[in-house]
Amino acid sequence: MLHEEEESFRLGIAGYTFVKFKLDPALEMIKKVDVHWLCIKDFHLPMKSSAEEIAAFHAKLKESDIKGYAVGPIYMKTREAIDQAFDYAKRVGVDLIVGIPETGDLPYVEQKVKEYNIRYAIHNHGPGDKVYPNAVTVNGYIKDLDPRVGMCFDIGHDMRYGNDPIADFEKYHKRIFDMHLKNVTAATGDGKTNELGRGVIDIPKLVKTLRKVKYSGVCALEYEKDMSDPLAGIAESVGYFRGVLDATRKG
Amino acid sequence: MLHEEEESFRLGIAGYTFVKFKLDPALEMIKKVDVHWLCIKDFHLPMKSSAEEIAAFHAKLKESDIKGYAVGPIYMKTREAIDQAFDYAKRVGVDLIVGIPETGDLPYVEQKVKEYNIRYAIHNHGPGDKVYPNAVTVNGYIKDLDPRVGMCFDIGHDMRYGNDPIADFEKYHKRIFDMHLKNVTAATGDGKTNELGRGVIDIPKLVKTLRKVKYSGVCALEYEKDMSDPLAGIAESVGYFRGVLDATRKG
Repeated sequence: MLHEEEESFRLGIAGYTFVKFKLDPALEMIKKVDVHWLCIKDFHLPMKSSAEEIAAFHAKLKESDIKGYAVGPIYMKTREAIDQAFDYAKRVGVDLIVGIPETGDLPYVEQKVKEYNIRYAIHNHGPGDKVYPNAVTVNGYIKDLDPRVGMCFDIGHDMRYGNDPIADFEKYHKRIFDMHLKNVTAATGDGKTNELGRGVIDIPKLVKTLRKVKYSGVCALEYEKDMSDPLAGIAESVGYFRGVLDATRKG
Repeated sequence: MLHEEEESFRLGIAGYTFVKFKLDPALEMIKKVDVHWLCIKDFHLPMKSSAEEIAAFHAKLKESDIKGYAVGPIYMKTREAIDQAFDYAKRVGVDLIVGIPETGDLPYVEQKVKEYNIRYAIHNHGPGDKVYPNAVTVNGYIKDLDPRVGMCFDIGHDMRYGNDPIADFEKYHKRIFDMHLKNVTAATGDGKTNELGRGVIDIPKLVKTLRKVKYSGVCALEYEKDMSDPLAGIAESVGYFRGVLDATRKG
């Protein structure tokens, strides 16, 4: 079984999944499910980390054959916070920031993207998010900016808003740099994140779309159920995704 | 997502998976992965259980929406052990025994099958098993017996013997009453059972065969890795199987 090795995209995990865990147990869980890509959250690698602390962090990940491919999501309420995030990403050595900027600061974000040549992916957060609820609104803000400004597309929040995340993926794929892979119990604000195979999003159809558009980013599983004891749900979700991949590769 | 609800077969779990656990934590794990069929091992329901103990066992399973569909595997070295097993199955209220009889006792097993109208499925145990290593040898012993004598086909042990378990499934499916669903690291005696999506058996191809022959038994996951802490591997395996099911249902 080859899983995602033959795909244009990779399977990873969003650091927020481990908000209740320190780095060591988080890495142990990621290793257990044979995943190798992590979006780094600042509770595992603080923004003010020194060069030595960053090097130690990368070395620790490498011991588990895991690589940090991006940082975030990071909320940026001020230009100073934007400055800090780009400086952090550069020092961490990634070329992708998942962020939530003030809309008035988008020209400044674009300027920093050009200056650093680091991509910036805005995260959509569903019906409770008045600014960036879904892919359509995010696209409205970014479509005329530098093509390195795009989105970290959260398919669960998009579905909770009532959108069709698979249609949205296909429509906006050129600006989708990262994805929060998850499922939800309902296509409404009350929908809760659950195991990848148990929700209303059609994951086999999503996978076909990822292939069709040749998505080359990471599918970052963000598991937000049982957050104090998430391993079983993470494992079930990873297994489900790989079952879908293997079953449809030749189809 | 409908998973196996639309299939001719069901997903279950072999009780042996929980050899290191008492019934309560085992049921908790089965419930966690949303599985509802259990092959009962005697370490969870002893052979000498009273009617009251059996009723309490069934009641406890029902609380977790789980049903015991068979008993075993049970090794039967004597005719008395065969008598005891049929009596046990009848009292437990199942119509299927997974067993390992002495070959000389097969006519006696057939007689008991007719007497009780309880099916008897012989379990194959791979290259280390001198009597019933694979589906071919089991079939050789049962083919001329009452059609209610069949096999609990362990695809992992069959693969470890060097057979093609998918071809064997197709060939012998009329006599396959139960299956131990698993994967193995290699098609040799040294192969170890592992997570369902990580081994050498092509599970998508197996699923297509199950549908083709309209298998109507249980696919009983038998997870024998990390037996002191199996939940993550069970969850990954269940997720993988359901991902394969969902991705291929329309295909």
